[in-house]
Amino acid sequence: MYRVDLNCDLGESFGAYKIGVDEDILPFVTSANIACGFHAGDPTVMRKTVDLALKNGVAIGAHPGLPDLNGFGRRDMVISPQEAYDLVIYQIGALAGFVKAQGGTMQHVKPHGALYNMAAKNKGLAEAIAEAMYKIDPTLILFGLSGGELVKAGEKIGIKTAHEVFADRTYQPDGSLTPRSQPDALIAGHEKAVAQVVRMVREGKVTSQQGTDIAIQADTVCIHGDGPEALAFARHIREVLERAGICVQSIGK
Amino acid sequence: MYRVDLNCDLGESFGAYKIGVDEDILPFVTSANIACGFHAGDPTVMRKTVDLALKNGVAIGAHPGLPDLNGFGRRDMVISPQEAYDLVIYQIGALAGFVKAQGGTMQHVKPHGALYNMAAKNKGLAEAIAEAMYKIDPTLILFGLSGGELVKAGEKIGIKTAHEVFADRTYQPDGSLTPRSQPDALIAGHEKAVAQVVRMVREGKVTSQQGTDIAIQADTVCIHGDGPEALAFARHIREVLERAGICVQSIGK
Amino acid sequence: MYRVDLNCDLGESFGAYKIGVDEDILPFVTSANIACGFHAGDPTVMRKTVDLALKNGVAIGAHPGLPDLNGFGRRDMVISPQEAYDLVIYQIGALAGFVKAQGGTMQHVKPHGALYNMAAKNKGLAEAIAEAMYKIDPTLILFGLSGGELVKAGEKIGIKTAHEVFADRTYQPDGSLTPRSQPDALIAGHEKAVAQVVRMVREGKVTSQQGTDIAIQADTVCIHGDGPEALAFARHIREVLERAGICVQSIGK
Amino acid sequence: MYRVDLNCDLGESFGAYKIGVDEDILPFVTSANIACGFHAGDPTVMRKTVDLALKNGVAIGAHPGLPDLNGFGRRDMVISPQEAYDLVIYQIGALAGFVKAQGGTMQHVKPHGALYNMAAKNKGLAEAIAEAMYKIDPTLILFGLSGGELVKAGEKIGIKTAHEVFADRTYQPDGSLTPRSQPDALIAGHEKAVAQVVRMVREGKVTSQQGTDIAIQADTVCIHGDGPEALAFARHIREVLERAGICVQSIGK
Repeated sequence: MYRVDLNCDLGESFGAYKIGVDEDILPFVTSANIACGFHAGDPTVMRKTVDLALKNGVAIGAHPGLPDLNGFGRRDMVISPQEAYDLVIYQIGALAGFVKAQGGTMQHVKPHGALYNMAAKNKGLAEAIAEAMYKIDPTLILFGLSGGELVKAGEKIGIKTAHEVFADRTYQPDGSLTPRSQPDALIAGHEKAVAQVVRMVREGKVTSQQGTDIAIQADTVCIHGDGPEALAFARHIREVLERAGICVQSIGK
Repeated sequence: MYRVDLNCDLGESFGAYKIGVDEDILPFVTSANIACGFHAGDPTVMRKTVDLALKNGVAIGAHPGLPDLNGFGRRDMVISPQEAYDLVIYQIGALAGFVKAQGGTMQHVKPHGALYNMAAKNKGLAEAIAEAMYKIDPTLILFGLSGGELVKAGEKIGIKTAHEVFADRTYQPDGSLTPRSQPDALIAGHEKAVAQVVRMVREGKVTSQQGTDIAIQADTVCIHGDGPEALAFARHIREVLERAGICVQSIGK
Repeated sequence: MYRVDLNCDLGESFGAYKIGVDEDILPFVTSANIACGFHAGDPTVMRKTVDLALKNGVAIGAHPGLPDLNGFGRRDMVISPQEAYDLVIYQIGALAGFVKAQGGTMQHVKPHGALYNMAAKNKGLAEAIAEAMYKIDPTLILFGLSGGELVKAGEKIGIKTAHEVFADRTYQPDGSLTPRSQPDALIAGHEKAVAQVVRMVREGKVTSQQGTDIAIQADTVCIHGDGPEALAFARHIREVLERAGICVQSIGK
Repeated sequence: MYRVDLNCDLGESFGAYKIGVDEDILPFVTSANIACGFHAGDPTVMRKTVDLALKNGVAIGAHPGLPDLNGFGRRDMVISPQEAYDLVIYQIGALAGFVKAQGGTMQHVKPHGALYNMAAKNKGLAEAIAEAMYKIDPTLILFGLSGGELVKAGEKIGIKTAHEVFADRTYQPDGSLTPRSQPDALIAGHEKAVAQVVRMVREGKVTSQQGTDIAIQADTVCIHGDGPEALAFARHIREVLERAGICVQSIGK
């Protein structure tokens, strides 16, 4: 039977600042990537988000980012593999504190934003992140861009990985995402986006922006947690996947 | 046989900024309070300091502080018990990440600066900190001002505590430290400071600034890790204590 | 003719985080207190907010706060008068950079949150803030709690001040605000809140929570810029004040 | 008569963290680049450093950096020209607050670290920084790598510039600095370093690492303010330059 995980970035609020509709979206996803205080989130938000995930039976993951709150972790920074290792250990540990205090377990780690994108292409950063996970807890599952350096690094060091795909993004013939700077980077329309995911899960294929079919591994799908259509899309994709006979459950189950 | 622990704040450097002579002082102390990135320290410094402590066989503790790097965690902030709980969980967790990754164990937690001082008097904050430790790992030992609210809160919730005394500070008849704003707050001269500690350990007594003897529990002594005389004093107190037949070892042994 | 200024905290967004409906509320207020990056705001938000204020003909003021982004500057911190002086100079200067670059002038300074509240009672902090303004630009107008230490300090050093009143807060017989911890701290209902302001402006009086009339100087009224009713209230109070024949214009005109 | 300016990065301490020997080095330099709180420095340090510069008759400049205190502003970050403009305005303004409060004037702006290096090559960033200076105060002098994009952008928009050279770095045939990653990036020995500067000032030439002579404009020389040899080198270069009949004074005089 086909199966897939739906993951979502959560816990991105900070102090008086609120982002996302965490409570509403949790019933529709199976893995929560919880911000760890560097690019978003703070200790109080982390505690509350871990609580919410546990109440909803959603698997918990750390979502470490670059130390750039003002840029929301979306601006590339030139950091060394050692710096990547250190800041990933720190953030996984901080979230693990809340998970442990509240009696849960951590399932996975998904780097955020620029750290995710840099690690998808940069072998040194990718291996540093995989090593950090291996050292802190070798049962953690590494979420990375399907086919990218990050999942390769995880496989190399011997931790479990989840190849991540995007519902609303178009792909290039080499399996990379069409850059957001290009006009056709985003897929407009929920139906088309969901159909792309269904095919990726069932056939392991996606049609590139250039019209050719490419192989792709779809273990987990990134669902957005904010924006006006986030909630409607989350509900919709979950329904369509289940109707298509695809088992939607967290990757670690 | 009498015994005592010598603890020292370490890992207080930050990026290009260096504080303390960690490598030099570690051979003389038995417990390291490692800064966790809020009032001092950063992920890279934390990793290196955990390494150093492990190499020197010094017990490792988290040293959580207020989120005030510019004030070095020394300025009182009005935070709620819930906020204290959250920031202590976060910082213990972050340090625990490095300890776990490097194959060590965490022995204790000692709040830093203003958080330490506020928790010594404020029952609500003290109980929140003790609860955070109890929830994240009930085997952690809580370091607090001898006789203060923090150790009381630890004893109440059922975790092990270490009553901390100060070599170079004078005491009031109620067991509190003479405030630094007063002229006789500090003890000048290494001999006098060490003699005070020896008596606290052997007799459980200290002569208050007003001349009366008071009872005091001395499980661990705070040793300074920076300043021009830090190293000389650390070496000296260790020698004198051992010559006096007092076993100097980490509290958790 | 009676006149009053309506001031509002603006520019409180930060990076990806949005707070307030600045564009919508600006047409109804006459003075903008713009956050300066310590408790809220960032360089990009500051530039945009200065632009918006200039386009709407609203007078610009700096809104310096404590260095506590996570607490939104609402948590008391024990800072020295010298520290208050320094952080107020820094923040006024930073905002002045944008104001100058965009061809405007700065009208006033209103400390934010905990800094405002502490300075209303603490003479040392109040005088440090007033001195900072006097030194950086003696034509700046100091906004402070009506009758509090801040406006007194401004008057003493010789800068212009604006006594600030609150539409939606109740008052104690000594002229202080009823603490928010008490049940009757807030005035429910727009009509009652606006009526209180009209009386403060025209008669210089307010009825305390205990039923007695007290004298109060109302140069400027604090209007909230976020929350579900902010916009409706701003429109309403402006209309009522103008209908009552009160001239609503910025204090510096 | 030949003349040159000696500039030094100062005010890089932060809270309890001290970097540099500002008081000792100020007598030997003519322009102070004062950190503005993003990569180093804080409001209190800025006030003290402005005071020190004024007392020593050293010209004051803003030294804006990337928002990366932990990396000391030395890590490249991908920021847009608009973001560069905004953070430069903010930091110049903040320092200008102290300069104005203390009765001085600001002479120049020199971007720090990664921002300096990026702007030396990236025309968009360079023009944004030059525009920020032009808008906030068109009399400010822009310090940038001799022959780089930053000084070109300043010349284009019509502000005064100072071409900066380095005493202890070797040059490539295209006028760029030999990257620090290469073995011969640094010039060992004070004599050789000073001789290079004397020739750059008098002849407008430097011998590249490859042995060819290249033309170079030397308006100001970067002097290091920390490290074990900083003070000795500053004293030495000043003496040699003056003995060589070169007038050492601030660029703005």
